[in-house]
Amino acid sequence: MTTLASIIVSIAEEMRTASERGAVANYIPPLARVDLDRFGMAVVGMDGATHTVGDAEVPFSVQSVSKVFSLSMALNTMGEELWGRVRQEPSGSAFNSIVQLENEHGIPRNPFINAGAIVIADILVSRYGRENAQTRLLEFLRPLVSDPASIDIDTDVARQERATGFRNMALANYMRTFGNIRNVVEDTLDFYFYQCALTMSCHQLAQVGTYLMTGGRNPLTGERVMSERNAQTILALMMMCGHYDGSGAFAIRVGLPGKSGVGGGILAVAPGVASIAVWSPGLNAKGNSLLGTRALERLVQHTGWSVFRANPWVANPT
Amino acid sequence: MTTLASIIVSIAEEMRTASERGAVANYIPPLARVDLDRFGMAVVGMDGATHTVGDAEVPFSVQSVSKVFSLSMALNTMGEELWGRVRQEPSGSAFNSIVQLENEHGIPRNPFINAGAIVIADILVSRYGRENAQTRLLEFLRPLVSDPASIDIDTDVARQERATGFRNMALANYMRTFGNIRNVVEDTLDFYFYQCALTMSCHQLAQVGTYLMTGGRNPLTGERVMSERNAQTILALMMMCGHYDGSGAFAIRVGLPGKSGVGGGILAVAPGVASIAVWSPGLNAKGNSLLGTRALERLVQHTGWSVFRANPWVANPT
Amino acid sequence: MTTLASIIVSIAEEMRTASERGAVANYIPPLARVDLDRFGMAVVGMDGATHTVGDAEVPFSVQSVSKVFSLSMALNTMGEELWGRVRQEPSGSAFNSIVQLENEHGIPRNPFINAGAIVIADILVSRYGRENAQTRLLEFLRPLVSDPASIDIDTDVARQERATGFRNMALANYMRTFGNIRNVVEDTLDFYFYQCALTMSCHQLAQVGTYLMTGGRNPLTGERVMSERNAQTILALMMMCGHYDGSGAFAIRVGLPGKSGVGGGILAVAPGVASIAVWSPGLNAKGNSLLGTRALERLVQHTGWSVFRANPWVANPT
Amino acid sequence: MTTLASIIVSIAEEMRTASERGAVANYIPPLARVDLDRFGMAVVGMDGATHTVGDAEVPFSVQSVSKVFSLSMALNTMGEELWGRVRQEPSGSAFNSIVQLENEHGIPRNPFINAGAIVIADILVSRYGRENAQTRLLEFLRPLVSDPASIDIDTDVARQERATGFRNMALANYMRTFGNIRNVVEDTLDFYFYQCALTMSCHQLAQVGTYLMTGGRNPLTGERVMSERNAQTILALMMMCGHYDGSGAFAIRVGLPGKSGVGGGILAVAPGVASIAVWSPGLNAKGNSLLGTRALERLVQHTGWSVFRANPWVANPT
Repeated sequence: MTTLASIIVSIAEEMRTASERGAVANYIPPLARVDLDRFGMAVVGMDGATHTVGDAEVPFSVQSVSKVFSLSMALNTMGEELWGRVRQEPSGSAFNSIVQLENEHGIPRNPFINAGAIVIADILVSRYGRENAQTRLLEFLRPLVSDPASIDIDTDVARQERATGFRNMALANYMRTFGNIRNVVEDTLDFYFYQCALTMSCHQLAQVGTYLMTGGRNPLTGERVMSERNAQTILALMMMCGHYDGSGAFAIRVGLPGKSGVGGGILAVAPGVASIAVWSPGLNAKGNSLLGTRALERLVQHTGWSVFRANPWVANPT
Repeated sequence: MTTLASIIVSIAEEMRTASERGAVANYIPPLARVDLDRFGMAVVGMDGATHTVGDAEVPFSVQSVSKVFSLSMALNTMGEELWGRVRQEPSGSAFNSIVQLENEHGIPRNPFINAGAIVIADILVSRYGRENAQTRLLEFLRPLVSDPASIDIDTDVARQERATGFRNMALANYMRTFGNIRNVVEDTLDFYFYQCALTMSCHQLAQVGTYLMTGGRNPLTGERVMSERNAQTILALMMMCGHYDGSGAFAIRVGLPGKSGVGGGILAVAPGVASIAVWSPGLNAKGNSLLGTRALERLVQHTGWSVFRANPWVANPT
Repeated sequence: MTTLASIIVSIAEEMRTASERGAVANYIPPLARVDLDRFGMAVVGMDGATHTVGDAEVPFSVQSVSKVFSLSMALNTMGEELWGRVRQEPSGSAFNSIVQLENEHGIPRNPFINAGAIVIADILVSRYGRENAQTRLLEFLRPLVSDPASIDIDTDVARQERATGFRNMALANYMRTFGNIRNVVEDTLDFYFYQCALTMSCHQLAQVGTYLMTGGRNPLTGERVMSERNAQTILALMMMCGHYDGSGAFAIRVGLPGKSGVGGGILAVAPGVASIAVWSPGLNAKGNSLLGTRALERLVQHTGWSVFRANPWVANPT
Repeated sequence: MTTLASIIVSIAEEMRTASERGAVANYIPPLARVDLDRFGMAVVGMDGATHTVGDAEVPFSVQSVSKVFSLSMALNTMGEELWGRVRQEPSGSAFNSIVQLENEHGIPRNPFINAGAIVIADILVSRYGRENAQTRLLEFLRPLVSDPASIDIDTDVARQERATGFRNMALANYMRTFGNIRNVVEDTLDFYFYQCALTMSCHQLAQVGTYLMTGGRNPLTGERVMSERNAQTILALMMMCGHYDGSGAFAIRVGLPGKSGVGGGILAVAPGVASIAVWSPGLNAKGNSLLGTRALERLVQHTGWSVFRANPWVANPT
């Protein structure tokens, strides 16, 4: 009998031996020196049952996956007004494009491209203050995992991102001219780089993602993290925009809401079924994890978890 | 007890009395003279149970909803090679934009913007011939409905579209320069305008959509219309690109794969649950049915059919 | 003593032996089969003195150089109202770009990019009728040359341009949607392709250009061809837009108003001094004659005819 | 007899009574509070004869006119290599557009749009150091005027530009990502804002411009400021790009190389004839002085100084 456990073991084996692995991000040394052979995966089900494989306990830089969490915090605090400062549409552009901003008067197309995530960071800095926003982010994440203390920031990554983040400086200053960045640019970017420097393991990331799997509740505590409506909104945005200009291909191949990061991590959610994290540092041409995407594709082929599938077959998580 | 029947009756009542109704398309008289007060809705479940309300039996011009069917035919005949001629990504642009084509060398961003649908038409004309392609389209659709003879083409609409379709002429000629239109431009456009001039009622349209609800089978005959894989691909594309540059908002508000037409129709599919057609001719600023979208939003609020919902509540279709 | 005669002989010698010659346009056979070694040049001074060298009597396809003449006719007949249908600014884009049209609602940036020249053709077809416009064009040109009968149309070129001119079809249809093409698209393009198929020798082309050298008069007859104001306007547009997205480099290197054609011809005008035609069929990356540009650069270096030169040295045309 | 003196008096009278005057730049207070009724003009001929009218001795913020001088310095020091870091073509875009930079990999279209001028500033900071570049700029300008000490920087303007210059921050950081800004962004922008804060009167500005009128010499000292070749290059660029996306209209209406600034000044040069400065703080929709442009148009109508004119009539400068 095919169990979820055996499925992810076979996936890990396929990925371990894959020859084409993409290329690690090389714009800062802490990312560039990550071992291309790393592969980890973790799946947490509705009943809390957890399956891990490979390097699932090794922390990595979650980078843009963190945009899901900052968006969650901003939506919680600001509600629908948020959509006056960032739109809800796929961009059809690369993650760091500035062109669309000029044509659309400084309002980013969605909260997952860099420009949009910087606006979200600005909202959180306005709401909580620069220092406190960092604390709040950790307070948002830690209750969702079983080992809260270990979620942390790689300050070396944050520092190097800041030292080389000229394009994000450009985006932020540009939006400032339209009044869509409201704090000192450096303060907003400080929080943005801080957030991107979060490190988690697949195990932790899949645990964090459970509030989206459950429609907004922390399954460990039963407490509501956000409204069911907001959880659906975030999943919809992950589906539409979670992989930049590779989002359509991801929707076709995987069929789950997901968000990738340049560190090679992907968080994917099967609503009401599972929260999944995968990590393989090699990226494809669109900047998304090459083997991470393939691993999710395999998982969905075996489990039928695609939201587009007529007859889902739910794996027996023995 | 809230039944699906009572839900759609209450929706129809809300839409009947809505004051803001959008504006009918006015670029050709047959569309411009449609009564803004029309509203119809039909829902077909997995067991074939059908619920209709309002003008659900009145034929209307399905226009771009037909792109779902021509894409299905092209994907059936051409398979994965199709993606060499049209991409799979949201465009972030209006339905008739030509800008993206120049930057991307005549390869449309997806098969649901006009340029992409014209490529699909070209593929079908190459495969079946100009005349025969029309016959094949009807043969594809008719077995899916209970009254096959009544699915037809409004030749007046087709003729007037052709007489005023300068922008589609521009798109087709432009792609011809890149070799991505391979028939005489007029032949390809003839089929494109023919397809857009299909008329169906909500009842028929919801029946036609059942092959996407079931993962590729015609529920009336049990025959396979397309592979399960292809059915999922089409649903994913409907989710990502079915409402042009309003696709993100539709995903958030409705949470179902859907495809709109300028005639005011929308086909939406809850995989494994229901095929839904709605018609209200007034359009919003993005060219999608204003009340049609709202009706689907209400339906999903009451039924929990969003693919992003953790705990779907399936209506008791009594 | 350096005379103009000796200058152009030395230029011809340099060009004859140049190894890098660019590439002939190859989109239609009549252009593709032109001998890359051809080089001709003709200079007509204010006193009518004419200097020719090389293949100056060999007819070639003037192509876009003809846009100068159709613009002259349109400006004569329509006056300042013309600028409501085409703008006066450099495009910063390739000659056949369609992007700018979408952003600027079907109004081309200037009359020398293809879109703009098609609008000019449309204006002339509206004014004179499709057939008669052709006659009028010849009537405009022939009085300016000493051998009027020999200016003609290469009907083979016109026919082949029309058969392959999908991009111009796209541009024209696109502008039609904005109401900026007002005749049947085929009629307007017929005249456009007719005009581009004009054949002249360098000698003839330099003679034709004399009305721009003199401020609007035909030096052979003394009759006014256009107002002095309009002649200056056309020279200014040649300077600003005459070489597509290579216009700035041409202004810096040559410093004269000029207009190039894909057949390898360039008409340049030193106001009050000389009308110059040069022909070398090999094109550079921007679609302008490679050696033709270099020949003009040399001519201006030796004569000081640049309009940006403080102390012009006028050659003694012995 | 119409003298140049009487011509500029009549122009000043026309401008004094003009009702439509445009709007002063209002992005920083020192510009916003300039009196809209100001108008000054100065003309310096080849013989040094100077004609002034109106507020010709009142200092104003030259802003982007200064880009002519920094480009001159950079071209002097770097030669043709300069064109690897900034191009020579009109942009077809607004002065502060960022779109083109993304498509063209951080190489600005020309040295007169903001992005291009920031690259020029970066080149000068690399060459001379941040502090010394400022000194060098003043040393470049002062020998050209009869009252050198009075050319200065409005430090209040420089400070306020820097405090609000988010878009220039965006442009500079953006180009930094492509390696086309090589100093600390703040240092380069410091010099850029310093340069823009130069204040001069029309009288001084026309005197400064004389090195372009003469083909590169300082007429006061007879010393060469730059090569004749470079002087022509700068005049060509002023013609092609000196008025942003209004450069074509300026070429048609005025027919002289010119460079405008947001302070309402324009420097125009009739090569070998005159250096002209005009100042009227009200701007047109393109950001160029509305009455300044009209005054230059009138001047050229009366004097025939357009470089596109066949038969120049040189005013008798009595």
